[in-house]
Amino acid sequence: MSELAADTSADETLSDVGEFGLIDRISRHMAQGAAVLLGPGDDAAVLAAPDGRVVASTDLLLEGRHFRTDWSTGYQIGRKAAAQNLADIAAMGAAPTGLLVGLAAPGGLPVDWARQFARGLADECALVGVSVAGGDTTRAASIMIAVTALGDLGGRAPVTRAGAHPGDMVAIAGELGWSACGYELLSRGAQGEGPRKAVARHRSPEPPYAQGLSAAMAGATAMIDVSDGLLADLGHIARESDVGIDLEPGAFPIPEELAEAARRLDKDVLRWILTGGEDHALAACYPAVADIPQGWSVVGTVLKRSADSSEPRVTVAGAAWDGPQGWDHFA
Amino acid sequence: MSELAADTSADETLSDVGEFGLIDRISRHMAQGAAVLLGPGDDAAVLAAPDGRVVASTDLLLEGRHFRTDWSTGYQIGRKAAAQNLADIAAMGAAPTGLLVGLAAPGGLPVDWARQFARGLADECALVGVSVAGGDTTRAASIMIAVTALGDLGGRAPVTRAGAHPGDMVAIAGELGWSACGYELLSRGAQGEGPRKAVARHRSPEPPYAQGLSAAMAGATAMIDVSDGLLADLGHIARESDVGIDLEPGAFPIPEELAEAARRLDKDVLRWILTGGEDHALAACYPAVADIPQGWSVVGTVLKRSADSSEPRVTVAGAAWDGPQGWDHFA
Repeated sequence: MSELAADTSADETLSDVGEFGLIDRISRHMAQGAAVLLGPGDDAAVLAAPDGRVVASTDLLLEGRHFRTDWSTGYQIGRKAAAQNLADIAAMGAAPTGLLVGLAAPGGLPVDWARQFARGLADECALVGVSVAGGDTTRAASIMIAVTALGDLGGRAPVTRAGAHPGDMVAIAGELGWSACGYELLSRGAQGEGPRKAVARHRSPEPPYAQGLSAAMAGATAMIDVSDGLLADLGHIARESDVGIDLEPGAFPIPEELAEAARRLDKDVLRWILTGGEDHALAACYPAVADIPQGWSVVGTVLKRSADSSEPRVTVAGAAWDGPQGWDHFA
Repeated sequence: MSELAADTSADETLSDVGEFGLIDRISRHMAQGAAVLLGPGDDAAVLAAPDGRVVASTDLLLEGRHFRTDWSTGYQIGRKAAAQNLADIAAMGAAPTGLLVGLAAPGGLPVDWARQFARGLADECALVGVSVAGGDTTRAASIMIAVTALGDLGGRAPVTRAGAHPGDMVAIAGELGWSACGYELLSRGAQGEGPRKAVARHRSPEPPYAQGLSAAMAGATAMIDVSDGLLADLGHIARESDVGIDLEPGAFPIPEELAEAARRLDKDVLRWILTGGEDHALAACYPAVADIPQGWSVVGTVLKRSADSSEPRVTVAGAAWDGPQGWDHFA
């Protein structure tokens, strides 16, 4: 960060540098990915779309609702903002090509926060070889982040939520439950009393980007990014595919460190895994005959939709899960 | 709107329907454009990008800063949000292919506002044959809108801000000054005392979408969407192209209705035209030999950059313009 630190004083705020100064400062320090044909600074960016189609997803992250500046640094929030959108692209079986980022922030926000945020975005993007190709900045009472991720399907069909068939296997890749554990620790102000990894994952998830492509190539019939909680997100697949899904609780890999943290906090580790959001694992359905790629764990089965519409779409060991399934941002 | 009115009561709020209900209700009523291969409801949308490249631009619109709900209806704000982003795509010489829209809003917002907003987005999109292909909704203390527009270059080079050469002509297409007049009227609570068109344009601009493509085909060397004010936006072209620009005030088409409104309000109509933002006209530079397409007015000339760096990039009748050039969102 030494070259970034050089051109502003430590306590300079966004109001001091002005809108265009901020955009320039941030984009100036970002290397552009190979897919970016025209980067920040014009009316629009131009990105490669070699497939002749483009995959596109957008998400909002709001201070106080999706992150807290006293819990996470600008850098961690930048990583998280990029990660959750790149995970959406991976969940279609596509390779990300770039991000567009809108940042609304108070005029009194230190420029250094925005610079750290930009570095977090850039570092997360670098994991998949892309960059922030454009954006917008404006003033607001609190920090609001809008991220759009673009991606390329490389000639494959997109893996949607609607393709699961009865008899398919349900599998997960990536981590589940860590972010919920981290949230619990941060809420209690007890970060030191649980696994450091849990707090770190709550601040910045680590989606299994490469597994989206692996799943698509292995013939996955449906896939989703687990952002609202596994039960809630599998519910989307079940509804869109008009099937049921039954999960086998004993099939979930449960890290001992996470189980130990749950015991200490008097929480149910399986509840974290089944309903905790924001880990950005991937969940996919595979034909019974598929070779499941390495890194995926089979945790359930796709069933025919029950004729009784009062029964839940997604069950755990054949029964309704007791309690909330996930997070509804307007509920 | 009769089929939309049927499925909710008039006073239902976003909290009543929940996040997923809102997204479903809005997307259900939107016809998708030809470029949308996979629309709302999955982790990401899939749009056609026949050129093998995609043009992408993102903008934030915040309640109280970019619009006021007591000045504009949800429908008008939807039209404006779509228009300013579609204009960015046009300003690259590209044809829009679709929008992604993030909406953060208070839980107490009437569902009907969101539905009107969606209809405004859809109607503006329909002007260029596209649709809202995806989005995100979340709760916030005030309304925040994030729009990303995508477009296709149809095999042409993008028309950037960096291609202007000394000797080029500077031309404008679309309207200038009307939004500033409308802002003045609304600020004074005197909407009835000026042209209705001015208030209408402030609420929802009418960018000359087709002129972006016309300019690109006629060989425009540089182009920009006029969102911050003509002088400020031509300043971007001048800086990126490393040239100067001189405007001829007598060359601007000045509608008599606008001039009359300025006289009544004791305002300078030329100031509205040169510095008023948000009309989303297009400004472009053309080689001296170009056939300027119909709908464009030549209003200035591209000059060599003055050796004296203290001189302004953009002048009016050879002199510095006195006063603010436009709008800086963090100033």
